[in-house]
Amino acid sequence: MKQIDVGLLGCGTVGTGVAKLLIDSSEVIGARLGATLNLKWVADIDIETDRGIQFDEGVLTTDANSVVNDPNIDVIIEMIGGEGVAKELILKAIENGKQVITANKALLASQGNALFKAAAEKGVDLAFEAAVGGCMPIIKAMRESLVANRIQSMIGILNGTCNYILTKITEERSAFGDALTEAQTRGYAEADPTLDVEGIDTAHKIAILTALAYGMEINLPEVYIEGITKITPLDVEFAEHFGYRIKLLAISKNHGDKIEARVHPTMIPFGNLLSNVSGTVNSVMISGDAVGDIMLYGRGAGMMPTASAVISDVVDIARNLMAETTRRIPALSFQRNHIQSIKIMSMDEIVTHYYFRFTALDRPGVLSKISGVLGNYDISIQSVQQKGRKTDGSVPVVMMSHLAKEVDVQKALAEIYNLDVVSDKPVLIRIEDEQLD
Amino acid sequence: MKQIDVGLLGCGTVGTGVAKLLIDSSEVIGARLGATLNLKWVADIDIETDRGIQFDEGVLTTDANSVVNDPNIDVIIEMIGGEGVAKELILKAIENGKQVITANKALLASQGNALFKAAAEKGVDLAFEAAVGGCMPIIKAMRESLVANRIQSMIGILNGTCNYILTKITEERSAFGDALTEAQTRGYAEADPTLDVEGIDTAHKIAILTALAYGMEINLPEVYIEGITKITPLDVEFAEHFGYRIKLLAISKNHGDKIEARVHPTMIPFGNLLSNVSGTVNSVMISGDAVGDIMLYGRGAGMMPTASAVISDVVDIARNLMAETTRRIPALSFQRNHIQSIKIMSMDEIVTHYYFRFTALDRPGVLSKISGVLGNYDISIQSVQQKGRKTDGSVPVVMMSHLAKEVDVQKALAEIYNLDVVSDKPVLIRIEDEQLD
Repeated sequence: MKQIDVGLLGCGTVGTGVAKLLIDSSEVIGARLGATLNLKWVADIDIETDRGIQFDEGVLTTDANSVVNDPNIDVIIEMIGGEGVAKELILKAIENGKQVITANKALLASQGNALFKAAAEKGVDLAFEAAVGGCMPIIKAMRESLVANRIQSMIGILNGTCNYILTKITEERSAFGDALTEAQTRGYAEADPTLDVEGIDTAHKIAILTALAYGMEINLPEVYIEGITKITPLDVEFAEHFGYRIKLLAISKNHGDKIEARVHPTMIPFGNLLSNVSGTVNSVMISGDAVGDIMLYGRGAGMMPTASAVISDVVDIARNLMAETTRRIPALSFQRNHIQSIKIMSMDEIVTHYYFRFTALDRPGVLSKISGVLGNYDISIQSVQQKGRKTDGSVPVVMMSHLAKEVDVQKALAEIYNLDVVSDKPVLIRIEDEQLD
Repeated sequence: MKQIDVGLLGCGTVGTGVAKLLIDSSEVIGARLGATLNLKWVADIDIETDRGIQFDEGVLTTDANSVVNDPNIDVIIEMIGGEGVAKELILKAIENGKQVITANKALLASQGNALFKAAAEKGVDLAFEAAVGGCMPIIKAMRESLVANRIQSMIGILNGTCNYILTKITEERSAFGDALTEAQTRGYAEADPTLDVEGIDTAHKIAILTALAYGMEINLPEVYIEGITKITPLDVEFAEHFGYRIKLLAISKNHGDKIEARVHPTMIPFGNLLSNVSGTVNSVMISGDAVGDIMLYGRGAGMMPTASAVISDVVDIARNLMAETTRRIPALSFQRNHIQSIKIMSMDEIVTHYYFRFTALDRPGVLSKISGVLGNYDISIQSVQQKGRKTDGSVPVVMMSHLAKEVDVQKALAEIYNLDVVSDKPVLIRIEDEQLD
């Protein structure tokens, strides 16, 4: 049986999962692949810790460079993370003609264009199924299954940490801070949760998916990013009153000559399947002109789910090597000469529905003043909810808008905040609901 | 640019969709593939009807044999359906060394083993993404994305007609016959709906998936099949009372040395995402030892969604041909020498939870008699619901069981039907709920 020699760089959580699968599941993988995946090297700065794996003698090394320079290695799996040494090792591996696999979404989102270019010039593959959505086969679906479709939109829950926290706030009316602490205790959030809760990790993923979907380069800087730190049980409660749940959504829409790519807390109706995706799970709904809507759902993180996605890349590459081919599928889905320059719209240009919560003094005329300002900016309201608890003499005034333009909304809200009857910064949550006018 | 020559056999609904995509979407397909898919032949007995497609001069033919015998054709797409001429043409195409694509689940379920053997011996591919779940990439997910997993179970809604009818019965309390008529009016059900409503089409699909999942040959005759024709609004109402919806599920479970493969109406809890899959959509939840649960969701039928899946096969094959390789992935996921003989359990052996509805005379002692018989067969009951409308002096007595064995259940129900206090055949619906004891 043919053997493919694999070098693993980084043996943290996901790296350990990859090693486990390569060793413990070698039989079932081999029965499908018809070849053996041989884990020849595992490089990590820590080769002392017991990872619960019986490595063969001499497999563990602290010298990652020697792994990428080993002429007998066919495939390099980069599981180090970060944008420093990981990038250097990937580039070195490409230069050495290795096929490379990574789950490093931060690196791909910020420097993927250069990395994919390097791989194309060298004629090797740089695979990254595990970079987006963990075990959900979203990269494969986009690059292979939807190949006959013009992608119209993608709407997804792409960060398990945020979805866990929002589920906690929704189901238990926890405050954000308490829900975050619980997520940290359970190992679902990092000690420094910034990348997750500020929406940055989600933005990395939608930046990658957006490039794949529409045939453009990765453009992270133009993705709008807003996290979940300001979501309160009160807004969750009002959302439910109107028939919505709040999720951190990545939204990407194709308008032909320009596209939307944004990450922010979003209200979606109960009838939308995504509103029922709870806990640490990821899910994405993709619309294509031939398929209509398809949805994928699965664990977006965690040792074994992510490792499973990495191994699917290893096997894909092994199948190519067995057929003596590489670059069977372009990394960003489109042939490089078909990658276009498509503008991502500024947030100001976005037109959508809005939920507003104003903290107003409990006195007559408030509603008229607020709605007057909104009217001046062409923002029309489809429902108002004024009942609610009084806090320090203020009451929440909640409104759902018809379609409105973000630039108008921001100006109106700034003006409303300056009204003497408004005592706190207005809250804005965007709504994604095709049923609304 | 390289050109792949394609011959299409059968230009009915899905065939027309395939032709449309090959012509209307050639630009986006070419931008991804880096080659042209040339629709050289379209064979159909009817070449007069206007299908809304501008075919090139001479593309349409009534002579399917000349298409499969054309030495310049690389890929044959079989969209004729049925098990007669379709099978002969597929075998002829294989014999001629063509790569073949089909969506013919009935043919694959009944004669796939022979067809896949013929393709293997000739060294060509026989691809079938569109045979199961329409545009949902379930075949690709199973064969490629989950390659590192031991599949533990698959639970799916695989027939859009049945799901539409059950959605109608659920949401509008329609009788089965009325819901079927509505489905026929809307074009979601055939004039003769037997294959769909009797669960046979679903069985075809789960027979194929079961082979792919566990590494065995296709074994349709041993799949248990029960349709939806006996589902009533009354049972839907009781199901809701207990927190369940009724879906026609395909259930396939891996017990190591034997497996379950069965199709029947099933109650699933509201919390299960599949219970929220409404209308003509398909969805499947797959459990693997590494990924946990993943779910796919998409249109299971219809011209363009199914055609999209067919084109994904054409592009996969075109990529192989461009790399001068074939049979990159084994048809049934496992290498042929790893395909095992695994027994499908008889229905008698199944252990699950049950919903029973007895039509009993409204008199004291009925419950004791019924539960006495159940007790004799070791079937214990976790809840009973006796209120409900009286019809002709009879009342429904509804029970939910703890885990019980099908053989015992069937014997008990036969005995209960013979009780003088029971006036109609007992209704049994199996329950799939991991939360139950």
